[in-house]
Amino acid sequence: MKHGGDLISYQDGYQGQLIDFSSNINALGPPKGLEEALIKGFPSLESYPDIQYRELKNTISQYLKVETSNVLVGNGAMELIDAACILAKRVVVVNPSFCEYTIRPLVHGKEVLGISYNEDFSINIGQLRKELKEEDLLILGNPNNPTGLRIPKEDLCEIYELVRELGAYLLLDEAFYEFVPEDYDTIELFKEYAYKNIGIIRAATKFFALPGIRLGYGCFNIEDVKKLEGVLMSWSVNALADIAGNFILKDKAYIEESKKLIQEERAYIYTNLLNLDGIKVYETHTNYILVKLLNTDENYLFDQLLKHGIVIRKCSSFKNLDNTYVRFAIKSRQDNEKLIEALKEIKL
Amino acid sequence: MKHGGDLISYQDGYQGQLIDFSSNINALGPPKGLEEALIKGFPSLESYPDIQYRELKNTISQYLKVETSNVLVGNGAMELIDAACILAKRVVVVNPSFCEYTIRPLVHGKEVLGISYNEDFSINIGQLRKELKEEDLLILGNPNNPTGLRIPKEDLCEIYELVRELGAYLLLDEAFYEFVPEDYDTIELFKEYAYKNIGIIRAATKFFALPGIRLGYGCFNIEDVKKLEGVLMSWSVNALADIAGNFILKDKAYIEESKKLIQEERAYIYTNLLNLDGIKVYETHTNYILVKLLNTDENYLFDQLLKHGIVIRKCSSFKNLDNTYVRFAIKSRQDNEKLIEALKEIKL
Repeated sequence: MKHGGDLISYQDGYQGQLIDFSSNINALGPPKGLEEALIKGFPSLESYPDIQYRELKNTISQYLKVETSNVLVGNGAMELIDAACILAKRVVVVNPSFCEYTIRPLVHGKEVLGISYNEDFSINIGQLRKELKEEDLLILGNPNNPTGLRIPKEDLCEIYELVRELGAYLLLDEAFYEFVPEDYDTIELFKEYAYKNIGIIRAATKFFALPGIRLGYGCFNIEDVKKLEGVLMSWSVNALADIAGNFILKDKAYIEESKKLIQEERAYIYTNLLNLDGIKVYETHTNYILVKLLNTDENYLFDQLLKHGIVIRKCSSFKNLDNTYVRFAIKSRQDNEKLIEALKEIKL
Repeated sequence: MKHGGDLISYQDGYQGQLIDFSSNINALGPPKGLEEALIKGFPSLESYPDIQYRELKNTISQYLKVETSNVLVGNGAMELIDAACILAKRVVVVNPSFCEYTIRPLVHGKEVLGISYNEDFSINIGQLRKELKEEDLLILGNPNNPTGLRIPKEDLCEIYELVRELGAYLLLDEAFYEFVPEDYDTIELFKEYAYKNIGIIRAATKFFALPGIRLGYGCFNIEDVKKLEGVLMSWSVNALADIAGNFILKDKAYIEESKKLIQEERAYIYTNLLNLDGIKVYETHTNYILVKLLNTDENYLFDQLLKHGIVIRKCSSFKNLDNTYVRFAIKSRQDNEKLIEALKEIKL
């Protein structure tokens, strides 16, 4: 199991509708009115998307509060990570993290150095200082997947300073940014540096509940935008993702409502998990939660929950996690209650 | 100008609706009923596409009459070409051809050997025999863009034999396959070889008039499918492309009607262009036509036609073509008449 969200593979194991706790999608579903916008946009399927994505980049620049020339778009956040890997000499990742940080550079024949998070999943900056070299591409999830932790602002600034001094590059994958309690905005934070040696990737996938549309975007130094566009494929963002991006990023009410929902449900699920025996619950800043099983393993819990119609993410496929970790998405109250109730019935 | 279809860049030059003769899309537009299928499929946007694209591959396998295990899907034909380039050692292209055959391998740091078509745009097999080496990836458009010519069956078999003997690989880009007058089907032709040392790429882009949806697919040897999937990005085909593919490939009436239309319009435009002075018209097997300007250049004709609201493809950006070539798409009778009338008014 390399990724979550693959419900089709498990449907045979359960009679009825499975609940997907394995992929981390906003429980509200996509913004209202999107369907009408897409229907209005159907004629655009008959033409190539704007090869420069002018309107989309303009919308994103307003949403991120940066210049259009800082904006890059891709076929999901993944394509932007991939493009950065193509340009990299060596890639440094901190594990456990999204497996594609390691897979994509290897696909392109690049060396990958994997180092470990501390036991509390904070970053060992001392080790980074020792290992990181000039021209390295350091990829960090912020918040990180599957640990759910945001990099503290002070740590991030220290890492950025190190990266700049060395002439390395820091790629922050902030695909889950909007779920995070308000702490700091990297795009604001690094504006004064004109995003030199740093790139920030975000996506429509998670927060706007649109994994099917494939829309990632990012904020980069103007020169880096040009370099990355030099390796991205023409028209890689499909015409309906273009339209969706122009619609969803303007829906302020949806964004506020989603933030409120995730805050409440994060507290609900965290508190309720803490009351269960046999597991260690990790703090989270986003819409999924990592849990260590103290007396059993991921396969046991996966199979038990599948009997309740619930699919979760086993975590042994993440480097540096063994088979005693699982990840739960944080969903609607109704679904979260089902998860908690099911867990209460299972011997943990 | 690296690609056609970029109308937005020229809209300022003309008051009114531009007619796009620069990108080669089926003039019928997409199959009827597709919109309803997409609307029904909107809920799929809230989930990741099936990471294995099981239903889509099944539909494609029936359409191509091959096993599902021979089928590969991608974010447009481009992503499949790109994946093959990632796995290649050296890429051999015959020019003029689609610029991405050269760009994608260069992006991946691969050596590219460009050789020339003969003056009549047939393939110089003797030269191929001299230049091609073991492990080379030879990419050929069939029919080729912008020349419009199909590779004669005997030539293709000779080239394939050469490729197999050498242990090289032949990638046929057949994005325009369905427009071709019935001659031979490469997928049928190379079935007995289990597609060893050969891959055949097709796309929804051109024939099904869906450049915006981004759906390419191909037929490969089973082991090569696995290798290529190892470098393709997860979920690179968006959920609506998945749905569209399952719909359009089953519409036999549309396919027949489109073939009839292109046959009639190809004859119409070819005959009418032959009657004009100042140009050399090349034979074509597909839905675009290459023209050499005998007394003027591409910029002159482009600007003159823009005054008539017509955008064409200048061809000097194709390697081995100078600034005296242009390419016209073959569109509906109404549009084709406008092109012919406009050309009659312009001093060529």
